[in-house]
Amino acid sequence: MGQIIKGKPVADAISQTLTKEVENLKVKGITPKLTIVRVGANGSDLAYERGALKRCSKIGIEAVVKELPEDIAQDKFIEELKKVNEDNSVNGIMVFRPFPKQLDENVIKYIIAPEKDMDCFSPVNVAKVMEKDKTGFAPCTPSAVIEILKHYKIPMQGKHAVIIGRSMIVGKPMSMLLLNENSTVTICHSKTVDMPKVCSEADILVVGIGKAKMINSKYVKDGAVVIDVGINVDENGKICGDVDTEDCESKASMITPVPAGVGSVTSSILAQHIIKACKLQNNL
Amino acid sequence: MGQIIKGKPVADAISQTLTKEVENLKVKGITPKLTIVRVGANGSDLAYERGALKRCSKIGIEAVVKELPEDIAQDKFIEELKKVNEDNSVNGIMVFRPFPKQLDENVIKYIIAPEKDMDCFSPVNVAKVMEKDKTGFAPCTPSAVIEILKHYKIPMQGKHAVIIGRSMIVGKPMSMLLLNENSTVTICHSKTVDMPKVCSEADILVVGIGKAKMINSKYVKDGAVVIDVGINVDENGKICGDVDTEDCESKASMITPVPAGVGSVTSSILAQHIIKACKLQNNL
Repeated sequence: MGQIIKGKPVADAISQTLTKEVENLKVKGITPKLTIVRVGANGSDLAYERGALKRCSKIGIEAVVKELPEDIAQDKFIEELKKVNEDNSVNGIMVFRPFPKQLDENVIKYIIAPEKDMDCFSPVNVAKVMEKDKTGFAPCTPSAVIEILKHYKIPMQGKHAVIIGRSMIVGKPMSMLLLNENSTVTICHSKTVDMPKVCSEADILVVGIGKAKMINSKYVKDGAVVIDVGINVDENGKICGDVDTEDCESKASMITPVPAGVGSVTSSILAQHIIKACKLQNNL
Repeated sequence: MGQIIKGKPVADAISQTLTKEVENLKVKGITPKLTIVRVGANGSDLAYERGALKRCSKIGIEAVVKELPEDIAQDKFIEELKKVNEDNSVNGIMVFRPFPKQLDENVIKYIIAPEKDMDCFSPVNVAKVMEKDKTGFAPCTPSAVIEILKHYKIPMQGKHAVIIGRSMIVGKPMSMLLLNENSTVTICHSKTVDMPKVCSEADILVVGIGKAKMINSKYVKDGAVVIDVGINVDENGKICGDVDTEDCESKASMITPVPAGVGSVTSSILAQHIIKACKLQNNL
């Protein structure tokens, strides 16, 4: 039976380190600060926001929310975003996406200050992820996956990592981050032929495809590590991942659950990014 | 025996299309223009430049070279680059890299105008390659590989493409371009364990590792398509690729030679990018 590897111990370890870092910054008179920019008030944004605010508060990061009306015009939104960009007291900005349809993501992504962009919205950060430039900010979810692998001492170098999904928020940056850790990386997607065969070559299988319990034991090599990035609602209204955890458990050596897996680590990554941004901005 | 697939027919077909496009632009009073920015005069830059100038001239693109002294200071270089950025008669800029050591690529890449950046130097274009944003400009070499595959009607969708090498100029953007064509993509590199086994799963094997004739038939699946991006000099002073072509020919269904393979197509891609830039800049 595979070991269920939870996110909480990873989040706790990161938070512990960050709490000390914040204490050191405060001695220097610096308090790291996050501004969350939220348009409207949809449920999943609010849920993420609660987690982020709680995490920041625990670690000692100041966090404020700028709530903007659902029907805000693009020029007004840009004006508000620029204010946060230019506010020297703010180190990190988290902008919830997707936007309502009057706001053009392809315009706005060029406005957010790259050095304050905490979730890889800016093309500058996208490029830095690809270039392995450590001054950039990778998206929180794939960064959380790397931290989980490191925490549980799962070797990445020379291992074959297979990623299912090619989104800009998980699959593509995940491939670059695993490449940076010297894994051999394969990216699968909806057009992949014989996906179970390709996936069963994986030492590390990362699943971010957005389909409830799609991945069963046929996709898993004996002894593989399975990381489930999916968050879905199953037929009984319960939260579940993209992996059929019960079915895969027998073959995997380690497997993350959903809930209580990758999702529990992302707010700690956000906090990590805020402190990194704060230190870079203060030349520390 | 595998078919040797040369670059010239691909370059010729692209050039023919582009020549017509330039004629149409000239009817509208528009002549596409490239400026090459070269620091110093090293041999490989000059060789590439001759090919580019010849190709542009053939197609009807105006091309000029701005030669700057080897020891130019960074602020002076930036000043010169900005002049080209701001020159409305120039549609495309090609900057030779690597630079002499007094010039910081990590600063300069943010200066070049993304809409004139013909070889994916700007982070904006790096991000666009990853985002599959067709208004961007991918690096010429991996773009040439895609054009060769298309020209020889080699299906990419659902095929397993394995790339050897993870550079910013070949491997990483190549992985994104093949992903955009719906291939299942694997990236190998120096830390990959049992590379021949990984590579012999490939329907399409793209090699850009920079080691003369390193890849022999052990890396090639029967019937695979092999694309050799390497340019090296062998022990007899002759140009050769990263693939031992003779050894692989028996197993591959198609294989590009070196010289006369991928390298013959890059200047046509450069021309294609200039015309695309010109059309975008003129809202055509």
